Amino acid sequence: MHRIVIVGGGFAGLYAARAFRNADAGVTLVDRRNFHVFQPLLYQVATAGLSPGDIAYPLRLALRKNRNTRVLVGEMTGLDAVKRKILLRDSEIGYDTLICATGATHSYFGRDDWAHHAPGLKTIEDATSIRGRLFFAFEAAEREPCAERRAPWLTFVIVGAGPTGVELAGALAEIANDSLRGQFRSIHPPDAQVLLVDASDRVLPPYPATLSAHAERQLVQLGVRPIRGCKVIEVDAGGVTLETPAGRQRIESKTVLWAAGVRGSRVGGMIAAATGAELDRAGRVLVAPDLTVPGHPEILVLGDLAHVEHGGKLVPGVCPAATQMGQYAAQLVQRRLKGQSSPPFRYWDKGSLATIGRHAAVADFGRIRFGGLLAWLAWLFIHIFFLIGFQNRFLVMAKWAFQYLTFNRGARLITGSLKEMPRFSLNTGDDSRRETSLSAPAGDPGCRPESH
Amino acid sequence: MHRIVIVGGGFAGLYAARAFRNADAGVTLVDRRNFHVFQPLLYQVATAGLSPGDIAYPLRLALRKNRNTRVLVGEMTGLDAVKRKILLRDSEIGYDTLICATGATHSYFGRDDWAHHAPGLKTIEDATSIRGRLFFAFEAAEREPCAERRAPWLTFVIVGAGPTGVELAGALAEIANDSLRGQFRSIHPPDAQVLLVDASDRVLPPYPATLSAHAERQLVQLGVRPIRGCKVIEVDAGGVTLETPAGRQRIESKTVLWAAGVRGSRVGGMIAAATGAELDRAGRVLVAPDLTVPGHPEILVLGDLAHVEHGGKLVPGVCPAATQMGQYAAQLVQRRLKGQSSPPFRYWDKGSLATIGRHAAVADFGRIRFGGLLAWLAWLFIHIFFLIGFQNRFLVMAKWAFQYLTFNRGARLITGSLKEMPRFSLNTGDDSRRETSLSAPAGDPGCRPESH
Repeated sequence: MHRIVIVGGGFAGLYAARAFRNADAGVTLVDRRNFHVFQPLLYQVATAGLSPGDIAYPLRLALRKNRNTRVLVGEMTGLDAVKRKILLRDSEIGYDTLICATGATHSYFGRDDWAHHAPGLKTIEDATSIRGRLFFAFEAAEREPCAERRAPWLTFVIVGAGPTGVELAGALAEIANDSLRGQFRSIHPPDAQVLLVDASDRVLPPYPATLSAHAERQLVQLGVRPIRGCKVIEVDAGGVTLETPAGRQRIESKTVLWAAGVRGSRVGGMIAAATGAELDRAGRVLVAPDLTVPGHPEILVLGDLAHVEHGGKLVPGVCPAATQMGQYAAQLVQRRLKGQSSPPFRYWDKGSLATIGRHAAVADFGRIRFGGLLAWLAWLFIHIFFLIGFQNRFLVMAKWAFQYLTFNRGARLITGSLKEMPRFSLNTGDDSRRETSLSAPAGDPGCRPESH
Repeated sequence: MHRIVIVGGGFAGLYAARAFRNADAGVTLVDRRNFHVFQPLLYQVATAGLSPGDIAYPLRLALRKNRNTRVLVGEMTGLDAVKRKILLRDSEIGYDTLICATGATHSYFGRDDWAHHAPGLKTIEDATSIRGRLFFAFEAAEREPCAERRAPWLTFVIVGAGPTGVELAGALAEIANDSLRGQFRSIHPPDAQVLLVDASDRVLPPYPATLSAHAERQLVQLGVRPIRGCKVIEVDAGGVTLETPAGRQRIESKTVLWAAGVRGSRVGGMIAAATGAELDRAGRVLVAPDLTVPGHPEILVLGDLAHVEHGGKLVPGVCPAATQMGQYAAQLVQRRLKGQSSPPFRYWDKGSLATIGRHAAVADFGRIRFGGLLAWLAWLFIHIFFLIGFQNRFLVMAKWAFQYLTFNRGARLITGSLKEMPRFSLNTGDDSRRETSLSAPAGDPGCRPESH
């Protein structure tokens, strides 16, 4: 029996596996995780609107009806393209057709030391960790009596004004303005500053300029401050340094989030090493128009890991593209098994949607472009519709309804060790413990006067 | 203004804080966490029925209407009973009245080295970590071709047949028998063994003997094997060793869960050191009948951390007792501020309920005792009713309804690092990678014959 091995259970891998349901082949789906993540809503977990379980779905459950398919939890560590097998940490799996769809991770443009200070958002763990940091910042601010030391806790910097950055910034502004209102005694959460930094001269750079302008207006209305045309040149525990047209600018912030670059997963390097395939600058594998690796028609690369062009343009790293590649790959392999050839992959661009906040979004359906409430409703329904699992759809809808009515975010849990949080400044000053007081600080020795 | 400091936002601490709403005093609630956990449903998070967000509620949200109350995230590290202040890691808080309600943690009866191999269930992190281990065990079994090495992955040992142990065992049996059915290709999940070990001669030892027998029948029906009258004398990475009436018995298991002993939190030791108060064998503070520390009427100890008797019996470490203590303490302090005295604390035992699984539970309301469907329904409604937050109640109800109808458990996420999981045995045998195969293993060198 023809052995198909799929690595990665994201949109590309899962949709490919599903489409093999009636194939006369043995399919193995390998993923480091036992669940599929609905990536477009990951930012909602990071901002406490949803729980991890709401946007994740067990791969076994998704593929339980594919009797020819097994799911394995494991990590690909190498590829032997000659003997046609992939290596896992502790075993190996032979294949006749290999489909690699391991996606992408963050790119810090060569400054991986920034990762610790400016976490990115790609996994469930990233999301719960960012969630903890966001809400811990408000807790630390509440405990910090010195205004000068409190300000960095209430300053949030998001680097990258693409869809993820815009979503995070909008949600964060809503948390500060609405969800936390009236629940603190020393600070006023709406005083928090949400800064959205991008090197481009507008937010949502891949969108048409009119929609970028629309999005920016909506962001400003929510209280986000976009900082355009500025490059981040340093990130450390205390904040970020920007290169602005007017020179360097320092922003003191305890919470910096990274939503800027993407880089193909490590599997791309394994494919390059084993097959001689070329990678683009972002570490994506340059594949043929039928998504196969040049010289290795038995290896396909899909989703965010693939560099493929359609109509002279790079197919973007978005879910619909990954889904289409998955379905295309399954068709190609099944036609090939019957001795038939396939046309090249064609990306059907159904349009783009980015949400900003309550009643705020932009939609780009080619000729039709709009923003505001209507785009927001379109975003809502499309995202609920494509969630895998009826239970998830129902729960997300219910949670959003509650959130809409009450402004509360149910899942604002700071989990994990408090020691993993940015250092609380009361620790870093003098050694003696200071009195935590309900009243305003009076002459705190570690706190310089506020006039600067 | 009278300064009241409450340490711990569990049932005792939170209910005390709420009851101070109209008190003419400044209240500070300190907790290591920014949320309250509905402990009775923690086992549902560990067994993927619910998500952490469903059973946790932000303390600030719970106390937002208490304008005289502030919430601080911090950890108590010491007590100065003379200067009347508690120490946090980085600051200190002065009090006129101190209420300690920091609860209890696991006790391994002096064998803390067992904790790593047999995690207990007290926090949200414990629950998600146990959840990961449970579902990882099935994943590892699916990948293990050698039957002898597969068996320990499909053997689950729960130490302690009190309410938590019984709940975990029942839920685990349901996972194996129903939730995972049809989703594996190499293993048959219902083959998993769930063993419930207790030194006592019956399950649910604090319950009347007739209900213990009833609970045991229901457990056996679900597929759990109770092992009574056996003491655990060793726990290691490979399993547990029991002392049985017939001698020592070894059980090979990769998943051992601890639901046996409890021990008062470290704050008990701080109180003892600062005030000379006595601790009982489980580290609980021996308090006066009005819950104050002898010689220190300004310090109260509540909930699982308090050793207090009522009617000649120790008040049990259950939620209703903690809630009642919280309300009593708030009343006592407010009466004292008005110069009034208070009667001693009286525990009103409303009865006990323990759930076992679908349609299976036992109820002990003193004269009325029953088991089965009716007890299960009572358990269901009481637990939903006492959940804090309307959204949580609604979501838990919805999730349970889905679970009831579909047997699916939505939240079976293995999160965190795979490296934290018990070592997968393919690693421990020979060094060469072995072929992972869909078919049965044929002469695996690392696998001894199965006849032993």
